[in-house]
Amino acid sequence: MDNKNTGNYTEISTLGEFGLIKLLTKNLKILNNSTLKGVGDDAAVLDYGSKRILVSSDMLMQGIHFDLTYTPLKHLGYKAVASNVSDICAMNGKARQITVSLAVSNQFSVEGLEELYSGMRLACEHYGVDLVGGDTTSSRSGLCIAITVIGDADDADITYRSTAKENELICVSGNLGAAYLGLQLLEREKKIFEGQTEDVQPDFAGYEYILERQLKPEARVDIVQLLKDKNIKPTAMIDISDGLSSELLHICTASDVGCNIYEEKIPIDYQAYKMAEEMNLNAVTCALSGGEDYELLFTVPLEKYEEIAALKDITVIGHISKKSEGCVMTTRNGNTFELKAQGWVSF
Amino acid sequence: MDNKNTGNYTEISTLGEFGLIKLLTKNLKILNNSTLKGVGDDAAVLDYGSKRILVSSDMLMQGIHFDLTYTPLKHLGYKAVASNVSDICAMNGKARQITVSLAVSNQFSVEGLEELYSGMRLACEHYGVDLVGGDTTSSRSGLCIAITVIGDADDADITYRSTAKENELICVSGNLGAAYLGLQLLEREKKIFEGQTEDVQPDFAGYEYILERQLKPEARVDIVQLLKDKNIKPTAMIDISDGLSSELLHICTASDVGCNIYEEKIPIDYQAYKMAEEMNLNAVTCALSGGEDYELLFTVPLEKYEEIAALKDITVIGHISKKSEGCVMTTRNGNTFELKAQGWVSF
Repeated sequence: MDNKNTGNYTEISTLGEFGLIKLLTKNLKILNNSTLKGVGDDAAVLDYGSKRILVSSDMLMQGIHFDLTYTPLKHLGYKAVASNVSDICAMNGKARQITVSLAVSNQFSVEGLEELYSGMRLACEHYGVDLVGGDTTSSRSGLCIAITVIGDADDADITYRSTAKENELICVSGNLGAAYLGLQLLEREKKIFEGQTEDVQPDFAGYEYILERQLKPEARVDIVQLLKDKNIKPTAMIDISDGLSSELLHICTASDVGCNIYEEKIPIDYQAYKMAEEMNLNAVTCALSGGEDYELLFTVPLEKYEEIAALKDITVIGHISKKSEGCVMTTRNGNTFELKAQGWVSF
Repeated sequence: MDNKNTGNYTEISTLGEFGLIKLLTKNLKILNNSTLKGVGDDAAVLDYGSKRILVSSDMLMQGIHFDLTYTPLKHLGYKAVASNVSDICAMNGKARQITVSLAVSNQFSVEGLEELYSGMRLACEHYGVDLVGGDTTSSRSGLCIAITVIGDADDADITYRSTAKENELICVSGNLGAAYLGLQLLEREKKIFEGQTEDVQPDFAGYEYILERQLKPEARVDIVQLLKDKNIKPTAMIDISDGLSSELLHICTASDVGCNIYEEKIPIDYQAYKMAEEMNLNAVTCALSGGEDYELLFTVPLEKYEEIAALKDITVIGHISKKSEGCVMTTRNGNTFELKAQGWVSF
């Protein structure tokens, strides 16, 4: 009864994550009036009265999404919550509740799980989120964390991926690539560490910021609030968990438009540049294809240019174009090249 | 940075599942007005307008909760959804949406995942539930399924665990122990199968019912509807996922009461009796401590006796007593013994 023996066998890697999701969810029917939006955005949108309910789920697997060699459990707990809250930010909503399901092997101690939970509690307090349930079970190996976040928003405030229009400005919060480069640094130090017989301590001096971006990212609730305060409603929005290219392509595909972004406009922190150089990586490539920045990528009407450009920690990086013009980046030397979805290579 | 080396180390098994959950959730604060009930029942209860929102999450791990040697992926998908819907039934609500997060190793084929999803879709259609989101990622080994179910109910209809009162009747739907005995049968045939060099087919004749109870359980949405139709609101309710003893103790602890149930009243199917006998097991013990029946356990006022006793597929098995009288079962020969929470031994 091995599933390899039941007729056809197609390797998951031939489809990739997005292809697989598309295939598995293609036959879904919506049965309830309360389901306004199902699969296909950062969160589902439900109608249960005056406010809209936003729901999003994420799963984090040891050995795939995190490496406990260099990830403190408390940080991991914080990050797991923050990355989920980020999905609600991407819908322009406020995260309210989470459920946390954990599977742990007997390698973990009670103290270790308390550490993990203390990080989750800290994030819950920071973001004003209630942990309302979940499941705790055992696993044959490793740690598995599944979180569902529930948020709310007024119907008129919700930002989808599918509503970007030609000529609108493309904006990002913060800076990009730092989390990925922080990960590369940790991986490098792990290798050095493992190669040594003596007890060499890793040297992270001067790279504290990119390490923090990797180990303790924040959901940009402040940007959601800032835009609200300034009365600027993004026309489309997504959070950058899989790299700028992939997320921008999600918006363009869903909105049936093209885009043009400018290499020189992409915000990259000094430490990220420096680390990229040290590692012979291109910092812009890291911004385009590295993951886990949890910054917000959004579009606003062209006439908002002055206002949006004046806001702290928000950068205009390009504009939405006709679909026929494709999704491109104009490089510093004036060439254009097509954006590709690298995404998170999960399989 | 191994978590075993950071100070204290307490084995999770010393606390058990319930002890661990209690420890991890003891410091949780509620921050949002919309959170009416957090951790501690079958589902969280949220206030988002006219209806109450119910939320529950479950995690299923390969090698812990299911064995793909004898579990068809389609059945597994169906069961994963049904067991979650059951949690909403236990709150006397209607399941509306689910999110499904999957982690799969590269041993799985696309066709295998389609099988799994086809079972989930079938269950969604059967229960009128919309699959609205989730996550799909890879795992280093095995399959991990995390589901969050969202349901709704009028505030006045919700049944908690904590509201059973002295003298009320204890009722169960369907029959108990069958799913556990179905599992024992599958495990036995697996061993026989593995011990043979020739291609011996397992013999399940005469045990189709208990196999179905294990492989394709149903959430008792029909019982929730029946009680509604008859205008009987349970005073407390829980679903039986971990065995009758454990669930009854949950109600008694939460309600601060005792209970007395009668061995001879516990409903057990003929096939379950027969299988228990064949395996030298006590069928009543299987009902008390076996898991995965997904029947409903609930209490009703004493004056409802005639009405409730007349209903098909519902059995009155005892009554709620004073806390000081303890939680006991009266055996066929008139002895009493204290109920113990075996639960699901996860660690």
